[in-house]
Amino acid sequence: MAVKRLGRASIAFENPPSIISGASIAGVKEGEGPLAKYYDEILENDLYGEQTWEKAESKLQKTAFQKAIEKSNLPLSKIDYVFAGDLLNQCTGSHYAMKNTDLPFFGLYGACSTMAQSSALAAMAVDGGYADNVIAMTSSHFCSSEKQYRFPLEYGGQRPPTAQWTVTGSGAIVISNEGNGPYITHVTTGKIIDMGINDANNMGAAMAPAAVDTIITHFEDTGFSPADYDLIITGDLASVGSDITCELVCASGYDISKIYNDCGKMVFDTNTQDVHAGGSGCGCSAIVFCSYILDMIKQGKLNRVLFIGTGALMSPLNLLQGENIPGIAHAITVQGRLS
Amino acid sequence: MAVKRLGRASIAFENPPSIISGASIAGVKEGEGPLAKYYDEILENDLYGEQTWEKAESKLQKTAFQKAIEKSNLPLSKIDYVFAGDLLNQCTGSHYAMKNTDLPFFGLYGACSTMAQSSALAAMAVDGGYADNVIAMTSSHFCSSEKQYRFPLEYGGQRPPTAQWTVTGSGAIVISNEGNGPYITHVTTGKIIDMGINDANNMGAAMAPAAVDTIITHFEDTGFSPADYDLIITGDLASVGSDITCELVCASGYDISKIYNDCGKMVFDTNTQDVHAGGSGCGCSAIVFCSYILDMIKQGKLNRVLFIGTGALMSPLNLLQGENIPGIAHAITVQGRLS
Repeated sequence: MAVKRLGRASIAFENPPSIISGASIAGVKEGEGPLAKYYDEILENDLYGEQTWEKAESKLQKTAFQKAIEKSNLPLSKIDYVFAGDLLNQCTGSHYAMKNTDLPFFGLYGACSTMAQSSALAAMAVDGGYADNVIAMTSSHFCSSEKQYRFPLEYGGQRPPTAQWTVTGSGAIVISNEGNGPYITHVTTGKIIDMGINDANNMGAAMAPAAVDTIITHFEDTGFSPADYDLIITGDLASVGSDITCELVCASGYDISKIYNDCGKMVFDTNTQDVHAGGSGCGCSAIVFCSYILDMIKQGKLNRVLFIGTGALMSPLNLLQGENIPGIAHAITVQGRLS
Repeated sequence: MAVKRLGRASIAFENPPSIISGASIAGVKEGEGPLAKYYDEILENDLYGEQTWEKAESKLQKTAFQKAIEKSNLPLSKIDYVFAGDLLNQCTGSHYAMKNTDLPFFGLYGACSTMAQSSALAAMAVDGGYADNVIAMTSSHFCSSEKQYRFPLEYGGQRPPTAQWTVTGSGAIVISNEGNGPYITHVTTGKIIDMGINDANNMGAAMAPAAVDTIITHFEDTGFSPADYDLIITGDLASVGSDITCELVCASGYDISKIYNDCGKMVFDTNTQDVHAGGSGCGCSAIVFCSYILDMIKQGKLNRVLFIGTGALMSPLNLLQGENIPGIAHAITVQGRLS
């Protein structure tokens, strides 16, 4: 077997799997944002025809799943595995979406890093020969998240400038051993890093150290430099976390400043949409990645992209017990053409 | 690449990875049970020197992790990945145990199926050539679970006969591409199955349909029969769920009755320990598998074991919203000698 492993935390795929389709469903506010035209569907209201926000979130994920399969032109019987997770306690967004679908399922918890984590593991399953076609997906919902992690919505709590707005949305991709790209060529797996942040309204700062570690590890492991990428995009650090990340990565000798962006800054117009630091939630990087980024790669406007899903492993209970908010960030390299 | 895939949901490893070490830490009540002598450590009290049950659970997992590495005789730097998860909201048992360890980490949520799920994915990572040595682990704690899923402990709620007792414990294994077994030879991945159970005090019945589906799928996919196994063990259906499972699997033409058992029935003496239907929780199958089962295989008393982790994907919130409790079950074949 040829060497697939690079450094401490990275792998290169021998037969890079293709992302043969992607779908994204976005909430109302997201549909008023700058990337609206890239989404497959935009909700008319947050309940999406359901009785509760949690049921709405499951429906979001089920719809993204169905659209991704539809766009792949594969019958459901050709999907071998699902890798999914979300922010809700017990990951119920994913579980209720996938129950009784008769699909082998791996449940994940990576908080807002889930789109990258599920894509990484799904690509490993395909490249390893365990599957032909795998779904990777996730979701989040502003209302279900806010009530679980912070305050009841009805309370109308003030939000400080560092707060992020959890995206209502879901993204799904089909990763296949056949196809003409975009290809997933590399994975750099994140570590859990706690640098002492304990403010649930400053998730960007909590996740930034993990993002910095993963980006630098990726460069060190693979030998790539910022010049090898057209876009390096974290999701979702928003303005506070992405500023920290850019500064620290640049200070370590990798000047990413000209090609770096963040899904949390792109998903909303932060000047007009009253989202404070920007977007967050598993759905944030999911809808940006599964729509805009994949589209740009398919159109040839971007060739090589480093997509870094960043998760704040925040537990309201453990915060009350005096713990901090550890972060984790997983990176995948997505490439339009294999040179 | 040779065929690794069998049927709809199973794979056979070309180079079966070895479980080169396993460690288990058990709670006080578990230490009074019939498998006490197999555990690496038994707690003296539920707080394990910590201020909260949640911190105690993280410490359980950290200790199991350290013991498994110690017993593997590998330096920490040779561990490539950790696959872990637990029952706590946001899987904090695993996250706080692994923070700042500098180890690439994949977070999982499979409820009580996590020991099998983490072992399956870790074995795939090793067999696929992505890693040399990987840790798979999980934990649960009676007190942290009970308060999260049912009632505050202080409330002293009555428990019906179908209720199970969440095990306080943690198990960890090191899976390696070198070693002399026990080998993980096959994986059958579970599907999310909801048959309408919505009683949080009858998790065995909620999980049984998923266990039945996975066991039958395993036989159909692999061509194995009950005669190929010395032990088929679910974890953790306890007496109610395991009776249902045995009856339904036997009725489908696979008579497993003579070789079938359940970790939830083995971990406690259900006649004397006042645990109602038996044990449950991620830690239940973890401490039975990582100690007793691995020991029996290493001693040659068992050769081929089908270990099925069963998870009830139960959310207290979604139950209040009228949802049921879906189940999932992942199976791995563990074998002492490769014939």
